Amino acid sequence: MDIAQIDTLIEPRWILPVRPRGAVLESHSIAIDGGVIRAVLPTAEVERRFSARRVVRLPDHVVIPGLVNAHTHASMALLRGVGDDMPLQRWLTERIWPLEQALIGESFVHDGARLAAVEMLRAGVTTCSDMYFYPDVVGRALTSVGMRAVVGIIAIEFPTAYAVDAEDYLRKGLQARDALRDDPLISFTLAPHAPYTVSDATLARVATLADELDLPVHMHLHETAHEVEESVERHGLRPLERLDRFGLLTERLIAVHAVHLTDAEIAQLGRIGASVAHCPVSNLKLASGIARVPAMLAAGVNVALGTDGAASNNRLDMLDEARFAALLAKAVANDASMLPAASALEFATINGAQALGLEKRIGSIEPGKDADLVAVEFSSPEVAPLFDPASQLLYASGREHVTDVWVAGRHVVQARQLITRDGIALEQAIVSSAAAWQNKCRQLLKK
Amino acid sequence: MDIAQIDTLIEPRWILPVRPRGAVLESHSIAIDGGVIRAVLPTAEVERRFSARRVVRLPDHVVIPGLVNAHTHASMALLRGVGDDMPLQRWLTERIWPLEQALIGESFVHDGARLAAVEMLRAGVTTCSDMYFYPDVVGRALTSVGMRAVVGIIAIEFPTAYAVDAEDYLRKGLQARDALRDDPLISFTLAPHAPYTVSDATLARVATLADELDLPVHMHLHETAHEVEESVERHGLRPLERLDRFGLLTERLIAVHAVHLTDAEIAQLGRIGASVAHCPVSNLKLASGIARVPAMLAAGVNVALGTDGAASNNRLDMLDEARFAALLAKAVANDASMLPAASALEFATINGAQALGLEKRIGSIEPGKDADLVAVEFSSPEVAPLFDPASQLLYASGREHVTDVWVAGRHVVQARQLITRDGIALEQAIVSSAAAWQNKCRQLLKK
Repeated sequence: MDIAQIDTLIEPRWILPVRPRGAVLESHSIAIDGGVIRAVLPTAEVERRFSARRVVRLPDHVVIPGLVNAHTHASMALLRGVGDDMPLQRWLTERIWPLEQALIGESFVHDGARLAAVEMLRAGVTTCSDMYFYPDVVGRALTSVGMRAVVGIIAIEFPTAYAVDAEDYLRKGLQARDALRDDPLISFTLAPHAPYTVSDATLARVATLADELDLPVHMHLHETAHEVEESVERHGLRPLERLDRFGLLTERLIAVHAVHLTDAEIAQLGRIGASVAHCPVSNLKLASGIARVPAMLAAGVNVALGTDGAASNNRLDMLDEARFAALLAKAVANDASMLPAASALEFATINGAQALGLEKRIGSIEPGKDADLVAVEFSSPEVAPLFDPASQLLYASGREHVTDVWVAGRHVVQARQLITRDGIALEQAIVSSAAAWQNKCRQLLKK
Repeated sequence: MDIAQIDTLIEPRWILPVRPRGAVLESHSIAIDGGVIRAVLPTAEVERRFSARRVVRLPDHVVIPGLVNAHTHASMALLRGVGDDMPLQRWLTERIWPLEQALIGESFVHDGARLAAVEMLRAGVTTCSDMYFYPDVVGRALTSVGMRAVVGIIAIEFPTAYAVDAEDYLRKGLQARDALRDDPLISFTLAPHAPYTVSDATLARVATLADELDLPVHMHLHETAHEVEESVERHGLRPLERLDRFGLLTERLIAVHAVHLTDAEIAQLGRIGASVAHCPVSNLKLASGIARVPAMLAAGVNVALGTDGAASNNRLDMLDEARFAALLAKAVANDASMLPAASALEFATINGAQALGLEKRIGSIEPGKDADLVAVEFSSPEVAPLFDPASQLLYASGREHVTDVWVAGRHVVQARQLITRDGIALEQAIVSSAAAWQNKCRQLLKK
């Protein structure tokens, strides 16, 4: 047999490939070439078939697919903790909106997205689906640090420094898509902000674009009881009913939050093959409620996970989010076997990939997929002893046990530090820029 | 003014002393001598008044009181992950009880408690209230690693290798108390296991001992709906009613879990000044439910926090537990301002100290109290920017940001590593012993 030259061979103790479902591979290795997974095979066989320029031995580690954050506002990392423990309306009207109004611009969006990217990569999050202003700037900032980005072409009616109205937002977002279409780490969604911020005309336009461009539609939906009530008052329709009028209830829909749904609405989401981006921590922190994930699973809804922005979480930590999802689902279902560890890991990987239309490229460790990989160490006291790698990963380990991360085969985190570009110096520069924005925010809040 | 010679001066950027309530001190320092806090004053003043043999400068850190874990079974760290995602009855009957029956002995209890102690200390947990077999062994194991221990004098009807019946358990526990009474890091509770495992005669004996010895009574109570129903069937009384018959409803009571309570029961706990050891993660993971913490606060119950054992969590991480408590309380109350960060920190510190009868010695950073202190760094990307140290601590930081820990003035963790005894070598030995027990468990589960 010919020996193939490849870039990298990763030899961990365990692999949780996510596909085949529930598999736990021991003494297997991952062969990577050109950023793509070439083979996942017993180590002895891989070593016979491949000669790698670089061999990474991880004798105490489990390797999992890169985590997929299906909903965030990365740049809001700069507003982390600016309004904690406040009721939602005061949080929005006294903190978030005034600060955004004063600060939003390319520089804020860029610095915030980079801060978020460093945090996410160090936590094993290799892809995020973002919704914010200046999506082109966000996309470039995320990939500049080494992360994969799904950028939301945002549509919202009110003006910002970025755009004057919904049509302007969409035009600029589509221009960004044209400008960035050759970047293999960037893809797009249409991102109408929410039922209460987007007009009927804009929904109609988004539906047309989604069909024409075959893009997912990423939208806050049924997050709070108030949102649903307001929609009924203004439109005589619940938000999902209103979207249905415009043909937006398709498998392209990513319903973000989806806390307040009737049985019929959950059944409908399942029937049409839609996705939910479940954000359990944000929903608790803003007192929005607890999404009915067990019912969604019974209905066949594809449930992905999101951290939401750091202003309402306050971390961008998908292992944490997956653990919250698993623990809350057990309590909601009154059944400790609900949403076992392996399923929660699917939420955080392949389900996110599917929601974003990327299931052929990421979300599992399979030959032909991009090499987005995360190594988690199981040698610290917090992760001993070890009975099942998936449950250890989910219930005992945390982002602090993530040691190495690869995105499209590129080693971006090693020994818990960013190693892309100038690595630690970049981390420090990013933290310093956060301190400068912190001072600006404090000045603004004093006024 | 005379300059006093002292052992240690800690100069952090911020101090959250917990008392006075809600205080955030900047540019203050903590003077420690003989294991006791001598002063908490502006740094300039401290430097004028004291000359320290050791000055620890922590320019990017917040210092908080050592965290108090009000309920755990430390030795069960060796059963971490042995039965995840299983319904409660199968988890107990197929995993936990058979393994305990086969393994319990001084060696298992010792190795498990040391593993738990290393994990807890690295997470800033300086005190734990334990309930398990061989309490003398647990106490010695915990303090041997540098931790403060509150040891439960366990009472349970069924025999183990440790004791043959409830009377024997109590006798041995009281002997342990006599043997360890000179250790300043060890104190005691009476720990009748649970309503379904303790007879009326034992409850009567515990009540007498609690009065005679002035000890807290630490007991699993109203954890599951099943427990309450079974008590009504067997005794014609709900568990709290049954305890009331024996005079056990006093301010000494620590009701562990307390998930299934009526309004009247919550009011009663508040009226008598009892404590609840709220274990939010364990309650979710075993699908026991979500305790009604907002109602407890309204009724004046002293709410402390516990991790429970690692077999049902699977971590011994009190910052995590405090975050779960805060987030769940908001959802339960439908109010994002419920249980703000500073209050959740009280749960994890002074409220635990009060429950355990240690409020004069630990739980806050005040002159005269033992120097149980934890430093958390705010220089990593996950904890930038910084608007409020308490909310940053609670919502953004994690155990991975804990850098230094002191117990009674002794520096036990530095740069995230245990430095008591042989430090890292001890950590490695403890992890190795966990691997040996893991193999024994696996053999037993195969049978």
